[in-house]
Amino acid sequence: MSAGVKAKPHASSKAAVLDAIRAAGTISRVGLAAATGFTGPTISALVRRLIEEGLVVETGRAESTGGKRRVLLQLNHTARYAVGVHLDHGGVTHVLTDLSGTVVARITRRGAGADEPRTVVSRTAAEISGLIDSIGVERERVLGVGLVSPGPLGPTHGIGLAPPTMRHWQGFPLGQALEQATGLPVVLDNDATAAALGEHWSGGLGTTTSSAAVYLGTGIGAGLVINGITYRGPSGNAGEFGHVCVDIDGPECWCGARGCVEAMAGAAAVVQAVRADPALTGAVGLGTRGVRASTAADFAAVSRAARKGEPKALALLERSARYIAAAARTLANIMDLEVLVLTGPGFAVAGSVYLPVVQRELRRTAFSRGTHVVDVRLSRSAATASAVGAAALVLESELVPLSQGTRLSERLAAESAAVP
Amino acid sequence: MSAGVKAKPHASSKAAVLDAIRAAGTISRVGLAAATGFTGPTISALVRRLIEEGLVVETGRAESTGGKRRVLLQLNHTARYAVGVHLDHGGVTHVLTDLSGTVVARITRRGAGADEPRTVVSRTAAEISGLIDSIGVERERVLGVGLVSPGPLGPTHGIGLAPPTMRHWQGFPLGQALEQATGLPVVLDNDATAAALGEHWSGGLGTTTSSAAVYLGTGIGAGLVINGITYRGPSGNAGEFGHVCVDIDGPECWCGARGCVEAMAGAAAVVQAVRADPALTGAVGLGTRGVRASTAADFAAVSRAARKGEPKALALLERSARYIAAAARTLANIMDLEVLVLTGPGFAVAGSVYLPVVQRELRRTAFSRGTHVVDVRLSRSAATASAVGAAALVLESELVPLSQGTRLSERLAAESAAVP
Repeated sequence: MSAGVKAKPHASSKAAVLDAIRAAGTISRVGLAAATGFTGPTISALVRRLIEEGLVVETGRAESTGGKRRVLLQLNHTARYAVGVHLDHGGVTHVLTDLSGTVVARITRRGAGADEPRTVVSRTAAEISGLIDSIGVERERVLGVGLVSPGPLGPTHGIGLAPPTMRHWQGFPLGQALEQATGLPVVLDNDATAAALGEHWSGGLGTTTSSAAVYLGTGIGAGLVINGITYRGPSGNAGEFGHVCVDIDGPECWCGARGCVEAMAGAAAVVQAVRADPALTGAVGLGTRGVRASTAADFAAVSRAARKGEPKALALLERSARYIAAAARTLANIMDLEVLVLTGPGFAVAGSVYLPVVQRELRRTAFSRGTHVVDVRLSRSAATASAVGAAALVLESELVPLSQGTRLSERLAAESAAVP
Repeated sequence: MSAGVKAKPHASSKAAVLDAIRAAGTISRVGLAAATGFTGPTISALVRRLIEEGLVVETGRAESTGGKRRVLLQLNHTARYAVGVHLDHGGVTHVLTDLSGTVVARITRRGAGADEPRTVVSRTAAEISGLIDSIGVERERVLGVGLVSPGPLGPTHGIGLAPPTMRHWQGFPLGQALEQATGLPVVLDNDATAAALGEHWSGGLGTTTSSAAVYLGTGIGAGLVINGITYRGPSGNAGEFGHVCVDIDGPECWCGARGCVEAMAGAAAVVQAVRADPALTGAVGLGTRGVRASTAADFAAVSRAARKGEPKALALLERSARYIAAAARTLANIMDLEVLVLTGPGFAVAGSVYLPVVQRELRRTAFSRGTHVVDVRLSRSAATASAVGAAALVLESELVPLSQGTRLSERLAAESAAVP
């Protein structure tokens, strides 16, 4: 498996059945037939194979509904594992998840900062080995590594047009280097898209037609989920929420446009506004020139100060929230959103300021408000959603829902091949 | 069929085969099997039934590729017809299309203006009768009427939250009233979404993963096409491009938000800016108080003046284009667009001003520009795209592509039912 190959996984009937079992928790064979549309004999054959491969186990019987009590199936959670790495300027989060996407081990380390890509790759490979060994998982059970970082991704699935803090990564063959260093298959994606996938796997987006996870980290992004499937767009650049324009005459953004919400309201913009006021810089406790922390650490310090009642820090966060709310209105009006989840490390520390501002804006101005509300929520796992989503990218290779692009012929071929 | 029912049509194998024939123009049975994924015997059975129903005809043989020359199939274009009506404040366009979506008759009348909804419905029913009779089509061959108007649509598929010029339509049971007046089934939708469907049927969007038609009429809207399927969102309000924010502190829009592109750059905003300058009002030839034309007619007059070299008129259109270009950048960044078509009556008269401005903006600032271009085009049928799309909504009931939400079980059931 080469980098990026799994980003558009091949759908198979086995994967569809596995995903239906994952989504249900426990389910009978009859329930599976209803959920997937496969016939009873096909389900029996597929389940037999999944049990033989150790991916699924029988786990008792359902409550009787009059007839014979049905045997329930569930994933064998410890049959497979996946590693998720969220690589950011401000911090690197590593998780190991089981087959259900549940985190079984986690390490957070300092960010990539200005370090050379090759150094970061070696360090990451060592962390991954430590993570796997720490809980005694055999290497053969680890399906691969999902690594996500601020976007966008180029066609070769390395980091293409890079944000300023990761400019020195531009063009570096990240996937290939990490495959060599770990001996595991590697999948790359955008951290905001991965956060949406992480929210989707953890049930945070519910079962909606149209939902989005807005991500606040070093940058701002969003992942879109349409009919239960992550929408990535033709080049993997969909959901570039950070580059939604909120002021046509606003300041220039690193992307080349003006008035992008990331340039006006991202963590770096908030920290910069604090630093423009020396008294506030001192009050918030930001390091001075020479001993500066990462933008993420500085933003967390501003958020702590705001929570403790520092009025200027609070005002700056509320100003940022107002811009993000306007961009969220634009996103809701384009996608006809039902659910919008705020996630990522920025909302993990400052969500209590942002949530009410975004909720109020969408309740008051979303175009669809006469028809349905837009349910704005704060993620319960905002700090780790991207890393979990990174692992889920790998798990999707075993557990894949029906993809938007799946051709019926492939599914029919898969189904007939499954019947012995 | 009641109003709106066809907005999410039931997919069937017959419809999938019909749509494949429509898309191809002419195609053999072997080609159909490859295009749809159905087996040879299934295709034979389905085609036999379509020929018996008069929807498909055999039309000669393909060039030999060595073996037996294959019989080609095509739609029997005159087997079915559909009516499309684009109802706007400024003008009403009525089209009659055949089964392929080709316009066979067309009438344009003055707009609904301030007339009572019941009066407009009676007049529309009379126009539809005239249109059908004018070319001697038997009533039984007319599948129904698609009627589109400025959005958004409420859950009852009448006009919900209405723009100012159509405020008196709010809550009027339009679909029901027109069904009673015409005796034909009626489908309702948003004019911008319909324009995207019209562009899709006429091939204007090409075969892309992600494309949009941006519509400039009395209002501004967009229709989104993802993987060849119109994306409407859970409440039919997706693609509300007119309510993309381009200036967080901009003027208030009728929708309740601030800085919407429609409020800052729509036809009404342009006309209002002209009227603020009495000399320009005279130079452009706008009617004075008491004898005012519709916004659409006034906007067309401003566009004519700009084309003739009136510098202030041109400057106002270019200012509008700058705002629409910024909103188009936002749309492209959210959807990862490959193709953006400018359509609708506004671009029909002023597209030559808008096209280069939008093209330049996306070439310079689209986030995906390192990976792929966003192909910005002017529609070749900008004036009638919404009416054609309205008819296509009806034709989709016979000719429906695989819907994003189609369950495999439905398709399998349809397939097995098709085999005798």
